[in-house]
Amino acid sequence: DRIERDLRSFADDETVVINVASTEPLPNFNERYHADIEGFEEMIDRDERKFATASMLYAYVALRLGLPYGNFTPSVGSSLPALKQLAIEKGVPHAGNDGKTGETLVKTTLAPMFAYRNLKILGWMSYNILGDYDGKVLSHSENKESKVISKDKVLEGVMGYSPYTITEINFFPSLVDNKTAFDFIHFKGFLGTTMKFYFIWDGIDAIVAAPLILDIARFLLFAKKRGVSGVVREMAFFFKSPMETDILNTHEQYVMLRDWFERLAEV
Amino acid sequence: DRIERDLRSFADDETVVINVASTEPLPNFNERYHADIEGFEEMIDRDERKFATASMLYAYVALRLGLPYGNFTPSVGSSLPALKQLAIEKGVPHAGNDGKTGETLVKTTLAPMFAYRNLKILGWMSYNILGDYDGKVLSHSENKESKVISKDKVLEGVMGYSPYTITEINFFPSLVDNKTAFDFIHFKGFLGTTMKFYFIWDGIDAIVAAPLILDIARFLLFAKKRGVSGVVREMAFFFKSPMETDILNTHEQYVMLRDWFERLAEV
Amino acid sequence: DRIERDLRSFADDETVVINVASTEPLPNFNERYHADIEGFEEMIDRDERKFATASMLYAYVALRLGLPYGNFTPSVGSSLPALKQLAIEKGVPHAGNDGKTGETLVKTTLAPMFAYRNLKILGWMSYNILGDYDGKVLSHSENKESKVISKDKVLEGVMGYSPYTITEINFFPSLVDNKTAFDFIHFKGFLGTTMKFYFIWDGIDAIVAAPLILDIARFLLFAKKRGVSGVVREMAFFFKSPMETDILNTHEQYVMLRDWFERLAEV
Amino acid sequence: DRIERDLRSFADDETVVINVASTEPLPNFNERYHADIEGFEEMIDRDERKFATASMLYAYVALRLGLPYGNFTPSVGSSLPALKQLAIEKGVPHAGNDGKTGETLVKTTLAPMFAYRNLKILGWMSYNILGDYDGKVLSHSENKESKVISKDKVLEGVMGYSPYTITEINFFPSLVDNKTAFDFIHFKGFLGTTMKFYFIWDGIDAIVAAPLILDIARFLLFAKKRGVSGVVREMAFFFKSPMETDILNTHEQYVMLRDWFERLAEV
Repeated sequence: DRIERDLRSFADDETVVINVASTEPLPNFNERYHADIEGFEEMIDRDERKFATASMLYAYVALRLGLPYGNFTPSVGSSLPALKQLAIEKGVPHAGNDGKTGETLVKTTLAPMFAYRNLKILGWMSYNILGDYDGKVLSHSENKESKVISKDKVLEGVMGYSPYTITEINFFPSLVDNKTAFDFIHFKGFLGTTMKFYFIWDGIDAIVAAPLILDIARFLLFAKKRGVSGVVREMAFFFKSPMETDILNTHEQYVMLRDWFERLAEV
Repeated sequence: DRIERDLRSFADDETVVINVASTEPLPNFNERYHADIEGFEEMIDRDERKFATASMLYAYVALRLGLPYGNFTPSVGSSLPALKQLAIEKGVPHAGNDGKTGETLVKTTLAPMFAYRNLKILGWMSYNILGDYDGKVLSHSENKESKVISKDKVLEGVMGYSPYTITEINFFPSLVDNKTAFDFIHFKGFLGTTMKFYFIWDGIDAIVAAPLILDIARFLLFAKKRGVSGVVREMAFFFKSPMETDILNTHEQYVMLRDWFERLAEV
Repeated sequence: DRIERDLRSFADDETVVINVASTEPLPNFNERYHADIEGFEEMIDRDERKFATASMLYAYVALRLGLPYGNFTPSVGSSLPALKQLAIEKGVPHAGNDGKTGETLVKTTLAPMFAYRNLKILGWMSYNILGDYDGKVLSHSENKESKVISKDKVLEGVMGYSPYTITEINFFPSLVDNKTAFDFIHFKGFLGTTMKFYFIWDGIDAIVAAPLILDIARFLLFAKKRGVSGVVREMAFFFKSPMETDILNTHEQYVMLRDWFERLAEV
Repeated sequence: DRIERDLRSFADDETVVINVASTEPLPNFNERYHADIEGFEEMIDRDERKFATASMLYAYVALRLGLPYGNFTPSVGSSLPALKQLAIEKGVPHAGNDGKTGETLVKTTLAPMFAYRNLKILGWMSYNILGDYDGKVLSHSENKESKVISKDKVLEGVMGYSPYTITEINFFPSLVDNKTAFDFIHFKGFLGTTMKFYFIWDGIDAIVAAPLILDIARFLLFAKKRGVSGVVREMAFFFKSPMETDILNTHEQYVMLRDWFERLAEV
């Protein structure tokens, strides 16, 4: 396997693999090839390309080599049951999916406020325009799908109900590496009175993402050294669609991460 | 004392006193009359009006009658050492100051996000326009002072440093009971790159405030029945300038309130 | 023809017909049936329903009865060559298309500023959310098409070049009759420096449209009384896609309307 | 006079003097020294410093030397009766005051839309934050006064009535040369329904100003060569407080400038 050779060629004990490639189209879940590691390896042996994506294969190789794996994209990565099983068997920690950088970070920080104060969210619209390559890829609807789903589930997870939502991602070339998100929140308070909240995020995805990627690598390596294996759900803080947890509230995620780190650091 | 007669005339065991009057000018702290309850009562006996404000006197009477007292305004209320002493002696719970309704609620929910992600806030401007009577009163600079101080300290408390801030409160009559707040946040990320965040809060203060006032009354009555006396610092969630705590992060305040309530409810 | 009987039943010399129905899907132009009035009447005789839309038929009947016709929607209405010919033959004034109410009004007022000052528009995004029935109809892509085209051509018309544009129209039920438009303009100034402009229009379409419809009726009746026949291009001020003029700049349209009115009023 | 020596040392027939210095405090108008050129020169002879400002003196010297003078600031410059008289006597064109760069440019472009459509402006708030030296100077209230007055009169001039306005200018150091203006417009339509409009201008004053200054110099030189003397009111397009005209609508100013230029260019 070529990926394995590549990785072996430079990987050492301190190496962590993080997926920062562009978003892939969402594959259909396949019971035979995705459910357990035997099926997954059969898929590779038979070269069943239509069931495999690049992110799965990289995750597979990383975990097999005992390298912690982080998935910074909404692609499938290590989230298949087969690969979760492999991570446990190999004793390797992994985390994902989809780095929580801009608009979703704000959303999961702000939405809890409406919940705490019993202000009902009637609707939330999120318009994202991106000038970089990511925007170009996401402007193709197949690839966009996994991103939009990842963004939409977030609000339901925080609020406990499904507000009406609109999420659009558009390519806007003149922004270059800049990303602008515009959100509008319509909410209802006491006596049914409706009120409005707007925000504009004028940031640079790469600049917000870079330190997260470094932190993910450091926390995964730390986890490996402390003997953690399988999904590190306490790293939900970094992701839009964290694996094996329904804690999406940024504040709760931060407390969970901090407590987990302090607990392990003391050991 | 007329206030006492008034309160006695309708107060019963279930009564809670909450200050929702317009903001007063900030009095100077006076060692002789404000530091302990003996001095405070001497001030009343000598009719030293320039050291007394309406909010102090109402707080004094409420606490003396054993009525829980909540201060929904930035006025001095029960925050004098003299009145805190009285509350302890009489075994009465009290809480304040300044209901956290709109722009500050958002600020204390959002600012932690920048702290968690190590994004440095370079500056934060907050422009508030109000159409109601509150706006008219606050447009007079004496009364505005206590409000602006209450708002500005908040950011320092959450972030641990003092970003450059501008806070303006203006009267805007055509909005009637509507309040619009516009905030601009300039922040710095990885490699010193600056980014921007804007929000607009288009709400109605009275509608956001009313259920808080009901909740404050209910929690204070609950506290009294559970034998709590003195400042209920766990009620910080409701206030811009909570007494006797430096927890200003809305999420931490919510967790603190919930845990306190659950603990006492079990008793 | 049933429409004709209906109109005859109440129309008098002061009657003006204005189309305020929901937007229709855009029909393909058909040389045989749409190019001249003979073809159009042949289409009716043969009951060729797939070439006809409701707005065409109402426009046809109105013009045939000598009633001025205004088209407040992006539907085809009286803009077919066949119906323009009919209006001239019958000596009836007509005007359209698509009432310029909210976001496009602002766009055609503001874009000239960038042109006057030689600030190059790199991109302009326009996000519209509507809570009313109009929003529901437009959320279906067929109907949306005619609206989006009508909105997009506007900028090219004002600026003389085609900036990159994104126009989205979404249904947002909790807004009821309220409409919110969010626009972002990315522009380039001296030395190639890029700058940004954002606006939010928080209005009520029906409230902005109603007085325009009254004005269109009054101006059309005035035109009829002054003997104007055919397209009244000077009424471009009221429309997103004015017929037979390329003046889209709101200011120029206003001056053109005012001058036309003053000229005719003097007669 | 030192200024005169300085100017003489490099000025030639093609030289134009433009004031781009920081805003001065507004001097009181003095009948004796400001009303005519004899008085003005007496003020200089007597060295009556408290009646003179730097901008007046530079304007005086420029006009005396026959150099066209443009005032890009709200300072008094050549707007004194005495200096207008001098310009006429010397046959020199001059123009001002206060370059219309960002927020006021938008204001005078947008406000006419509300007038054209009979939408009543109830209130308009304008918050400006600047990071440059200009912001620092304007944050001192004396200097700010002339700027705020210059900005406020604009709306009354365009609309024909005085909406309620708030104009704030604040220094915000981390923005460096960036300027952010936030405007909120509350307006009333059909049946008294109120609606809202917000805009954010995120620009760079120097970048918007530089080409205007070049254009002002070129138009003034052109005017001089065509024999124009005194205030060039047709150059109102470039200024917030244009001299000797009440045309503040950007569009009308543009048409006036274009027509004037075309008329003179034909000569």
